[in-house]
Amino acid sequence: MTQSLSIQKLLDEFERLPGIGPKSAQRIVYWLLNAAPADATRLASAIVEVKETVHFCPRCFNYAEGDLCAICADTERDASMICVVSEPRDIGAIERTGEYRGLYHVLGGALSPLDGIGPEQLTVRELLERLAGDEVEEVILATNPNVEGETTAVYLARLIKPLGIRTTRLASGLPVGGDLEFADEVTLGRAIESRREL
Amino acid sequence: MTQSLSIQKLLDEFERLPGIGPKSAQRIVYWLLNAAPADATRLASAIVEVKETVHFCPRCFNYAEGDLCAICADTERDASMICVVSEPRDIGAIERTGEYRGLYHVLGGALSPLDGIGPEQLTVRELLERLAGDEVEEVILATNPNVEGETTAVYLARLIKPLGIRTTRLASGLPVGGDLEFADEVTLGRAIESRREL
Repeated sequence: MTQSLSIQKLLDEFERLPGIGPKSAQRIVYWLLNAAPADATRLASAIVEVKETVHFCPRCFNYAEGDLCAICADTERDASMICVVSEPRDIGAIERTGEYRGLYHVLGGALSPLDGIGPEQLTVRELLERLAGDEVEEVILATNPNVEGETTAVYLARLIKPLGIRTTRLASGLPVGGDLEFADEVTLGRAIESRREL
Repeated sequence: MTQSLSIQKLLDEFERLPGIGPKSAQRIVYWLLNAAPADATRLASAIVEVKETVHFCPRCFNYAEGDLCAICADTERDASMICVVSEPRDIGAIERTGEYRGLYHVLGGALSPLDGIGPEQLTVRELLERLAGDEVEEVILATNPNVEGETTAVYLARLIKPLGIRTTRLASGLPVGGDLEFADEVTLGRAIESRREL
């Protein structure tokens, strides 16, 4: 054995992270070995702190530190709209657009019968409970534009529309700045189908 | 603010690591948020442990956990050979070849007058002290094949040869499995110069 045991252990731990191969793990570990002790400690405690303080928001199932997540706790947000997403990380993507000021609901995945994920495995019941009052006027179904996401959106729309709530879906079409020539046929077909009046 | 404070802190810490951009940091942080608490704790404690237990080997300046590093402590290794490298990570690269069974000496860098790195900033004095006995028969200068590495090798060879110790340098030439067509002219020139009899 030519490698220090604790270095090998740290290498193994970093290699378990997504997107980190043996070379990247090695680079990071040598960086940490050279780093000031305070820098390394700060990373370690940030990991511990996140696991200790972050939990799911009991209302929308986003990650939260306080009672509610930062978005649910923000009284400035428009409570008449709920944007339904699969995962908490999707919230970050929508927030970065700056186009949406309503609330969210995280399903915790998408319907996938083959993987044993039905409505009971998602937070569908909790979503319907949130819609039981008359505050919500629109639900945007922002699940991913793939088979599972579409299935989930269609399933939810069938449950929500009868409640008299406007139910919408994110537009599919050509990516802005994209090249028509390189668009796949499904996306291009969808873009033609959903063409807008100018 | 739509992001939890401790999540943002962890994102910042991961982004400081080499080779980790905002997207990779986000992927890792969401992975950690989903991971079992024990998995996250193991990573955090591995970081703390490495910084607490790993220090420089007083003999060869490799990373060590015990009194000496694993290689210096291994009595099976050939103490008549010392391979001089710039950084501890270079030892890993040489060990993986399985071609070398001697000891090492880590310089802690390479000569670079412009950056203010002279022999005093490296472990040159300690290397010469190790060569003072009559145990060492060969020193392999395995500094990098770039300007600083070559300068360092030439400088060390001038100090070591007068001691009557065989002083060698790693061969330069075409990478195995490489393509002659794509070799840079310096490497190809070196390969012709150092051609072997078949």
